[in-house]
Amino acid sequence: RNAGRPMRLAQVVVRDKTKPRDCQLPDNLISEDLEKILSNSEITVVAQLIGGLEPARTIMRQLLKAGKDVVTANKALLAEHGTELFDLARKMERSIAFEASVAGGIPIITNICQCLSSNQITSLSGILNGTSNFIVSQMEQAGTQYADAVAEAQQRGYAEADPTMDVDGTDAVQKLAILAQLAFGARVHWRDIPSTGIEGLDSIDLQYAAELGYRVKLLAMADLASTGLELHVSPTLVRCGTPLGEVRGAYNAINIVGDAIGDVFFHGLGAGQMPTASAVMADLIDTAVGRTQLTFQTLNLQSQDTESIGLSDPDRVPGRYYLRLAVDDNPGVLAEITGVLADHQISISSLIQHEPPSKSKSPGLPLVIMTHTAAEGPMHTAGQSLQNLPSVRDKMVKMRVLD
Amino acid sequence: RNAGRPMRLAQVVVRDKTKPRDCQLPDNLISEDLEKILSNSEITVVAQLIGGLEPARTIMRQLLKAGKDVVTANKALLAEHGTELFDLARKMERSIAFEASVAGGIPIITNICQCLSSNQITSLSGILNGTSNFIVSQMEQAGTQYADAVAEAQQRGYAEADPTMDVDGTDAVQKLAILAQLAFGARVHWRDIPSTGIEGLDSIDLQYAAELGYRVKLLAMADLASTGLELHVSPTLVRCGTPLGEVRGAYNAINIVGDAIGDVFFHGLGAGQMPTASAVMADLIDTAVGRTQLTFQTLNLQSQDTESIGLSDPDRVPGRYYLRLAVDDNPGVLAEITGVLADHQISISSLIQHEPPSKSKSPGLPLVIMTHTAAEGPMHTAGQSLQNLPSVRDKMVKMRVLD
Repeated sequence: RNAGRPMRLAQVVVRDKTKPRDCQLPDNLISEDLEKILSNSEITVVAQLIGGLEPARTIMRQLLKAGKDVVTANKALLAEHGTELFDLARKMERSIAFEASVAGGIPIITNICQCLSSNQITSLSGILNGTSNFIVSQMEQAGTQYADAVAEAQQRGYAEADPTMDVDGTDAVQKLAILAQLAFGARVHWRDIPSTGIEGLDSIDLQYAAELGYRVKLLAMADLASTGLELHVSPTLVRCGTPLGEVRGAYNAINIVGDAIGDVFFHGLGAGQMPTASAVMADLIDTAVGRTQLTFQTLNLQSQDTESIGLSDPDRVPGRYYLRLAVDDNPGVLAEITGVLADHQISISSLIQHEPPSKSKSPGLPLVIMTHTAAEGPMHTAGQSLQNLPSVRDKMVKMRVLD
Repeated sequence: RNAGRPMRLAQVVVRDKTKPRDCQLPDNLISEDLEKILSNSEITVVAQLIGGLEPARTIMRQLLKAGKDVVTANKALLAEHGTELFDLARKMERSIAFEASVAGGIPIITNICQCLSSNQITSLSGILNGTSNFIVSQMEQAGTQYADAVAEAQQRGYAEADPTMDVDGTDAVQKLAILAQLAFGARVHWRDIPSTGIEGLDSIDLQYAAELGYRVKLLAMADLASTGLELHVSPTLVRCGTPLGEVRGAYNAINIVGDAIGDVFFHGLGAGQMPTASAVMADLIDTAVGRTQLTFQTLNLQSQDTESIGLSDPDRVPGRYYLRLAVDDNPGVLAEITGVLADHQISISSLIQHEPPSKSKSPGLPLVIMTHTAAEGPMHTAGQSLQNLPSVRDKMVKMRVLD
């Protein structure tokens, strides 16, 4: 009904026909032979739902060369080989739709490419990896350490047996690269975007953050600052009670600031069979109606001819920071530390130093400092000076704070 | 750039050329003569930004008959005369785009018509009137009474000199009618949707709601229940910490549940010059690209040929309720009241009865009851029985609770 015409499933091609499946297909509809799609001129659009880079890349090239429009959910493929594939699609006068590649059920691609097309987007901040968000929420709510939260996520099916790409930031940074290219109309490679995962996260920092009125989120940020475009993925303190701060469990969320629209916020399931299917089917309907082709031709996405984005020098990007140091319990230590910050023109927004528990045998007292906005350059230097102070033990924890 | 072609402003027609305006237009671009648009065949799309029903309706008919595609922000016009105008547009093979008519900066129309097109939407709940939300937020945060909060909203420019349509629910119910027709593919007239505004709201109920962990919102609801489609607008208790519960001030928000996508939530500025302009310009770009026409032709919106929606019998719709009664401070009163609810098979989820302040001279003690889910029929009868008890004074307050 919403496509305005009949849509017919003509052929399913899989690696292994005999694998048990939840749905029953007539025998003539399922095969292991891609030729059945490539050579069938009645098939005009193909949903290519293969993960990883190969054979996904080769197959997509074959599909485009055979004159098919393609719908995909493969974010890694587009982040790695988007320019090549999009250029090929344009050469073949075909389209690629990829709503399902970022944020699952949140239709963020169409919203950026179409609904917000009258805006200069100035900022985009997103929780783009549901697995990480579940793990951090779990650590925060149950007070468990990282490894236990990962185990819990695996047990509930939110994390793969090998969750590396989720927790090290790769998944989020690939999605950020795709969104940034749409939002800012330029090219960027995901490997060029600075990224920190959640692997090193200590639940004590989640408790201090909560005490300060914040939650820690693995945040993907794109900011069009006066110094250029700033892109990064890192664990970030987000204020409780704000839309992004309240995103729990395996949900995804994205906040966009446009010069006309102001703030607009999207929240939904970031992954899973049905939300992904919803996005893939919406793309298939859009392609059947003809909207995908118009948008794809108009926007000239990720073209070889498009300028690469000049990323900001991270040392010049201003921001607020959360610092946790383990310090000796000696007179003058606090004066020494605050002196270092003052020397670098960094002012303190809040500070926590609790009385040590009497039974404590830990090597240092925790001292938590939240700064006002400071350039990353002075912040970086000040951080090194703090770390080198004789009264500072262990490695300092440093996280960004979302303003 | 996002339209893929040049767009040129050819003519502006206003009621009074001499009125002072923020922007300067060349004299040949601005006139008071609609003929300058109607007779100019180079003008293919017109943004018609006139409020009210007339002359907006007549002008839109003239524009469509002259072969123009039309973009509008006029929700009252579409709620009242949508079927006639949409049918005329189809007859003339033109399109009407109306993103700006509902929820200002939130691109909810495109999201429902396009991004969620693979879903059967099962439920939609929205805060669609920013003025009311500002007033209720103000009453809640500052503890002020309704009249003071309205004055504050007027002073800050959030409410008109006559805010009737905002606070009596008319504005929200007209928007709900538009969204429901898109989401459920059937026709409904806004006057047929039960609606209660915020005019009678007492700040004491906001305080009790907060004590129970809820906030009161003027909520527009559409629910595809087994008994049919349920539509209504009314002050509703929404749980704190949920996305809808945290919507403050003049913001709008919409939560949609789809059978595939699950919950998806949108939050943004509901009104104002720039968010509205963002939506109007997005529609103009969509029309320039050709997407609007495809969508409009495909969806056959609000057609005379479409079935009217059969609204559910409100007496059969199940729900949870908040009740506040003023009762005599006599032995047995609580047993009497809870007995009435028990007789109607309505169970109590929570109850608040505070000790009366010693200086209290009020005619009755406040008793607050939150029920578990009950059909509106028994709820209605139980409500009448409670109201008729000799120990119950004044009029009982009854509000829905969002589950």
